[in-house]
Amino acid sequence: MNRDQYVPQIPYGTRDLLPREAKQKRTVENSLADLFTKWGYEEVITPTFEYLQTLSIGAGDEMLQHVFKFFDKNNRILVLRPDMTTPLARVAATRLKETPPPVRLFYLTNVFRHELAQAGRQCEFYQAGVELLGASDPAADAEVVALAVNAMLESGLANFQISLGQVEFINGIMAESGLEAEYRHKVKHCMVTRDLVGLGEILSQCGLSTGTQKLLQRIPLLHGRNDMLDQAYHLVQNDLSRQALDNLADIRRLLTGYGVDQYVNFDLGIIRDLDYYTGMVFEAYTPGLGFPLCGGGRYDKMVAAFGIECPATGFALGIERVLLALERQGININIKAKDVYIAWKQGLLSKAIATAQEQRGLGRIAELALGPQTRDQAEVAQRERGYRELIYIE
Amino acid sequence: MNRDQYVPQIPYGTRDLLPREAKQKRTVENSLADLFTKWGYEEVITPTFEYLQTLSIGAGDEMLQHVFKFFDKNNRILVLRPDMTTPLARVAATRLKETPPPVRLFYLTNVFRHELAQAGRQCEFYQAGVELLGASDPAADAEVVALAVNAMLESGLANFQISLGQVEFINGIMAESGLEAEYRHKVKHCMVTRDLVGLGEILSQCGLSTGTQKLLQRIPLLHGRNDMLDQAYHLVQNDLSRQALDNLADIRRLLTGYGVDQYVNFDLGIIRDLDYYTGMVFEAYTPGLGFPLCGGGRYDKMVAAFGIECPATGFALGIERVLLALERQGININIKAKDVYIAWKQGLLSKAIATAQEQRGLGRIAELALGPQTRDQAEVAQRERGYRELIYIE
Repeated sequence: MNRDQYVPQIPYGTRDLLPREAKQKRTVENSLADLFTKWGYEEVITPTFEYLQTLSIGAGDEMLQHVFKFFDKNNRILVLRPDMTTPLARVAATRLKETPPPVRLFYLTNVFRHELAQAGRQCEFYQAGVELLGASDPAADAEVVALAVNAMLESGLANFQISLGQVEFINGIMAESGLEAEYRHKVKHCMVTRDLVGLGEILSQCGLSTGTQKLLQRIPLLHGRNDMLDQAYHLVQNDLSRQALDNLADIRRLLTGYGVDQYVNFDLGIIRDLDYYTGMVFEAYTPGLGFPLCGGGRYDKMVAAFGIECPATGFALGIERVLLALERQGININIKAKDVYIAWKQGLLSKAIATAQEQRGLGRIAELALGPQTRDQAEVAQRERGYRELIYIE
Repeated sequence: MNRDQYVPQIPYGTRDLLPREAKQKRTVENSLADLFTKWGYEEVITPTFEYLQTLSIGAGDEMLQHVFKFFDKNNRILVLRPDMTTPLARVAATRLKETPPPVRLFYLTNVFRHELAQAGRQCEFYQAGVELLGASDPAADAEVVALAVNAMLESGLANFQISLGQVEFINGIMAESGLEAEYRHKVKHCMVTRDLVGLGEILSQCGLSTGTQKLLQRIPLLHGRNDMLDQAYHLVQNDLSRQALDNLADIRRLLTGYGVDQYVNFDLGIIRDLDYYTGMVFEAYTPGLGFPLCGGGRYDKMVAAFGIECPATGFALGIERVLLALERQGININIKAKDVYIAWKQGLLSKAIATAQEQRGLGRIAELALGPQTRDQAEVAQRERGYRELIYIE
C-alpha cells in the first residue's frame, strides 16, 4: 500500500496521549477528584474559550501575550482559556453569587498557552486545582496548602517540598522604601526569574538606601523553617511585612494540625509570576523536575473585578508534571491489569459472547476475539495483547 | 457595592456546568470509562485543535463549514476538533500502526461545532465514544452496537431504541438505477432530514423508472424487526443491497447473543449525516428527546486516507443528551451525599482539623468550618450547606 499519502502532523505544542499515558492520567485525575470531593470541594466546568474581555480581568498582560485568539461572528475576540482561576472567579461572581460563602470549587481540565512550550508543559496542558472563595482566614490558606500536599501524596508522590511565601512581605519593604512602580515591577520580575545579578543591577540604579538595597537583595535568600521567620521579623520594621510574617506563622501552625508541616518550608523570594496574588503564595518542587509541580496562593481582589468583594485562595497542579515526576522517580501508577482474552472455535461465537458478558459482569476486563482462532493462535493473541488469562471456547 | 462593573458573558453556544451538573457528568463519564475498559477498549486523548488539513480528511464539507478556525504562527489553519473519529483515525494510522489489529479505542471529551447550537447540543459539547479499528467482521459491528446499548444502560437509561440501517442498501439501489451523483446526494440529504415531500419532488425530476422511484420513496418507511428485512429482501435484486441486508441479519443474530436485541430494530432510512459511513449505521432514540442520543456505524475508508487500509466501526454518545434524557425521564444519577460538616468553638480549630482528616480518611465527604461558630450557627450552616451530619468540637 505504498502510495501517495498525507502524513498528518499535529500542531506545535500539542500531543497525543496514547493508552498507557491516558490511563495514568485518568487514574491520577480520578483520585484527585475523589480527594477534592472528600474535602468538600465541588467541580465546575467552564467553556474552553471565553471573551478576551472577560479573561483579561484576571490574567495579567504577560499571560495575555500567550493566548490563542480567534473571532466570533461579531468580531469579538475569543481566547482559549490560559488558566481556570479567572473563569472560576467569573462563575463565583455571577452564577454562584447567592451561594453562602465559603464556596469550594475544583476543576480538572485543559488550559492553553501559546509559545510557552517547555519540558513538562505543552501549549495545551492539563491542570487539577481548587479555589476556596469567600474566606480570608489563615484557616482557608492552611486548608488549601494542606490539600495541595494531600493531592501530591494521593497522586503517588512522596518526595516533594512546598515553599511558602507571602507577597505582602516584599510589598511592605517596597512601600516603605518609596520605590517607584516601574522599579517595583522590575525588581519583582528579577525575583520571579531568580535573576540575582539583574536584581543587583536594578537595585543599584533606583536610588534606594544601601540598607534597603541589601534587604531586597537578601529576600531571595530568605528560605528555611520557623527560625527563618524570626530572623526575617527582625529585618523589617513596617507593619505590612510583619503582618505577612505573622500570617505565615499562623498558617504554619495550622499545617502542623494537618500533619503536613514536614512538607512545607518558607521562602520569602516566592512571589509567583501572576499579578493577581495578594497574600500567601506557594510552589511545590520535587527532585529531578526543574519547574514547580504545583503553585497557588491568595488573590483577594480578582473576584471584585467581576462585581463582588470576595477574598479567595487556591492552587493548580500540573497533571503532566505529576506524571513526569512519577516516571522519573520510578513510581508506578496502579493501573488495572487486562484480565482475560476470550477466543473461540469456528461456530462458537455466541457462546464466546455469553462468556465475555459474564466476565465483564464480574468486573473483569475481557476482550473478545472477532474471528475464529485455533488454540495456538489464541495463545499468541492473548500474550501479544497483554491479557493475563485465556478462555478458549471449543 | 453597587458600582460600575463589567458583567461578563460567555460566548454563544457555550455554558458553565455548575456543581450538580458537573457531578452528574463525572459520574456518568466514569461509569462509561469503566464499561469501555471492561470491554477491552483503551482511552486515547488528542489535541483540542488540529490542522484543518488533517481534519478535512475525515470530516465532510458539511461539517467543515461549522468548525472554529484560527491560525498558527505560520498562518496554517487550525480548527477546534468537530468530532473525535478523524483524530482517532489519525492516531491509529500513525502512532498505533504497529499495534496488531484489532485496535479498540475510546474517548470521553469535548468537541466543537459552530452555529449548530440546538437543544441538547451547544457549540461546545461532550461525547463518549469508541472506535474498533482493523476488523471488518459483523462481530465487530455487533460488539459496537451491543456496547452502545450497554453504555446507555450503564448511564441509567432504560427506555431507548436503537435503529439499525446499512448505507449499502440504498447505495445498491442507486447504483442499479444509474442515478447521477448530483441526484444521489440530494436524495440522501432528503432521507437524512426525513424530508419525504422533498424526496418525492427530487425523484420525479431525475428520470428514474416509476418502480425505482417508488422503491426509493419507500426506503424511509422500511423500519421494523426481522420480518421487515425479509420484506426488503424481495424489493431489491442487486447484490450490494442484498449483501447489506444479509449483513444486518448477521449483526442481529449476534446481538441476540449479547442479550440486547430487544433494544434494536431496523430502519433502512437511517443513513447518517456524515459522508464517511460505508456499512452498518445506527442511531439511538429515547422518548422525550427529539434527536439521537447516540450514533455510529462502519467507516472502512477513512483511515486509508491517512495511508493505511483499515476497516473500522464505532459510535459516539452525547453526554449532555444522556443527562437531559435522564432528567426528563425523572431518573436520578447516584451522586455521593455530603456526609459531615465539622464546626468548632473558638480555639479548637486544631482539634477540628484532626477530626476532619479522620473523617476523610474513612472516605467520607467532610467540610471544615473556617472560623469559630456557636452550636446554633453550626447547625444552620450544616443544613444550609447540605451536610447530613454535624460534628461540633467544643
